[in-house]
Amino acid sequence: MKDENKKIRLALLGFGNAGQAFAALLASKRGEIKERYGKDVQVTAIATASKGNLLAASGASAAAGEAGEAGAGAAAGAKAIDLDAVLADLAQHGRFTDQALLCELDTMEIVKTADYDVLIEMTPLNILSGRPAIDHIEAAFARGKHVITANKGPIAWKFRDLQQQALRAGCGFFYETTVMDGTPVFNLCEKTLPLAQVSAVSGILNSTTNFILEELARGAAYDDIMERGRAMGFIEADPAMDIEGYDAAAKITALLNVLMDAGLTPDQVERKGIENITAADIKNAAERGKVIKLICRGWRDGEGRIRASVRPEEVDAGDMLASVNSTTSVVSITTDLMKTVSIVEHEPEIEQTAYGIFGDLLRVLSEC
Amino acid sequence: MKDENKKIRLALLGFGNAGQAFAALLASKRGEIKERYGKDVQVTAIATASKGNLLAASGASAAAGEAGEAGAGAAAGAKAIDLDAVLADLAQHGRFTDQALLCELDTMEIVKTADYDVLIEMTPLNILSGRPAIDHIEAAFARGKHVITANKGPIAWKFRDLQQQALRAGCGFFYETTVMDGTPVFNLCEKTLPLAQVSAVSGILNSTTNFILEELARGAAYDDIMERGRAMGFIEADPAMDIEGYDAAAKITALLNVLMDAGLTPDQVERKGIENITAADIKNAAERGKVIKLICRGWRDGEGRIRASVRPEEVDAGDMLASVNSTTSVVSITTDLMKTVSIVEHEPEIEQTAYGIFGDLLRVLSEC
Repeated sequence: MKDENKKIRLALLGFGNAGQAFAALLASKRGEIKERYGKDVQVTAIATASKGNLLAASGASAAAGEAGEAGAGAAAGAKAIDLDAVLADLAQHGRFTDQALLCELDTMEIVKTADYDVLIEMTPLNILSGRPAIDHIEAAFARGKHVITANKGPIAWKFRDLQQQALRAGCGFFYETTVMDGTPVFNLCEKTLPLAQVSAVSGILNSTTNFILEELARGAAYDDIMERGRAMGFIEADPAMDIEGYDAAAKITALLNVLMDAGLTPDQVERKGIENITAADIKNAAERGKVIKLICRGWRDGEGRIRASVRPEEVDAGDMLASVNSTTSVVSITTDLMKTVSIVEHEPEIEQTAYGIFGDLLRVLSEC
Repeated sequence: MKDENKKIRLALLGFGNAGQAFAALLASKRGEIKERYGKDVQVTAIATASKGNLLAASGASAAAGEAGEAGAGAAAGAKAIDLDAVLADLAQHGRFTDQALLCELDTMEIVKTADYDVLIEMTPLNILSGRPAIDHIEAAFARGKHVITANKGPIAWKFRDLQQQALRAGCGFFYETTVMDGTPVFNLCEKTLPLAQVSAVSGILNSTTNFILEELARGAAYDDIMERGRAMGFIEADPAMDIEGYDAAAKITALLNVLMDAGLTPDQVERKGIENITAADIKNAAERGKVIKLICRGWRDGEGRIRASVRPEEVDAGDMLASVNSTTSVVSITTDLMKTVSIVEHEPEIEQTAYGIFGDLLRVLSEC
């Protein structure tokens, strides 16, 4: 990808809030990318669960039969999806309506046959298995395609193996967004802490539980908190995955797999959620100058094994962790050479998720 | 510097606590550097104010006359300073005693004549002018040498000009240690926030004032605080530069010069120290749920001009800033694409300063 003005074609899997924000960011930065990176980034395919699937005329290589004129289109010269038009279409109709782009291929058929250089995996997370995102990524590597995932499932469930597949295929594999959106965590270690060995990781990584614990501390009733949280978009329809610590467990596992080569899966995390924390517990802690937070930790034990926990802990009211509220999150990284450094993401919006994916794309452009 | 096993020779200016910790780190990592970077790092000169100046036999190129056998030594093959031996010598005698290495050149003569590839500027800071560190750096660039500075004076007083000199000379110029030791701040922006434009910077960057304000809040008397702080090494013999905000002003200026191309000097910062803050002020603030901190800020005003301030501010007791105590420090960086990200350095030791310099050296090895 070192050719000047080479076209780099993206296939987007998933086009929810993050996918749309990424598309809008990409559309606004295409000129700057051309200028700075000498690459022309185009989107050739978009796969969604409920809005329809799009394939540019040049977006299919091996599936000419299924994709109609795609083969001819590719031969006649590249065509790309107009992101601004697609976003406008979606805003107006709630789904894709451009018949020239709509196709009958399903998501995996797009992964296996569409004409792209970089797969961007943004499908909804299955926190208990990491699939089908893992399958999409493996199919892309099998075709020698670079992969960016914003979906943390694959990093939590199968990082080491996927990393090896990427290496063997000579492909880039980037995943900054999977923990703390666009805030550099993996890149912080890889790019700015050279030769330092990570020995421990901790943090507050789940905003739903953060919100619930704060509201309980303010004296709100549990049912009111859930109702208000749902209205504000902080709490999902079924919040069990957050409240019981599964989301946090997946995040600390992803961190440890990448930063400490842990080879863990989320079910190996000692996990305790906040479901049994009461307003009385919080009040009692406050009287002792403590605040209850759902803390993620990873460390190497006496036998050299990497272990992880997610559980409610009492932290000092004056501790930095006590100040991490609402959608703000923090990761603290301890290394042999730099002691402990923490990075904090303050109340991110969906644009910060989009920037994480965008930053990974820039790594593909400059490094792959 | 892309040749395998090429020798990279360093001249160290200053050999206080940070210089010695850097030398110890370098000595312990030479093998790993060779393996990972394919470069053999050697120290050929060390200049100090009071411990004597050292020059390896091969450490002089143009000054054979003054350096005695140096010319012959260089011709006969490179010799380097044995860092472990020098550190042991210093520990035993409090100054350098190895007659084979001691030389009569002064610091600037070493900069101008010694045989080195990278100058590492670690001389004591002159916060009111940045000199003579600036002179050392300019003399090194004039000879086409790469420069690493741990001294913030040059970045606060003359960054833009020095950066241009480095560019014209085709030299590397690195300065991560000048704010928050080895914690990535400049590298965070350059390496992990691509295409993002910094619009504001803030932080708590002076540990002396942090310590004094905390101790006042605990009810300690001013004179006792000063005495205890001096004993603990937190407070310098003459603490005016810290207490009146000069140190913090130099740091915010350095941040703004690099991250926002501000072209500021420290005397342009709106500066107010903590010299007039009383225990009563702190108690009064606490009663309103506030904590007084010396906060640095930089921003672009309505006319596009970059402005900076250092002043005591009341922050909410629950704010992250209120939790930044003692030698812990924080920088918050606001950009167009990633909103605000904060990075926190927790109670660093001198080894973290050494790591900052070491990280800059690794950038020279891999990028220059």
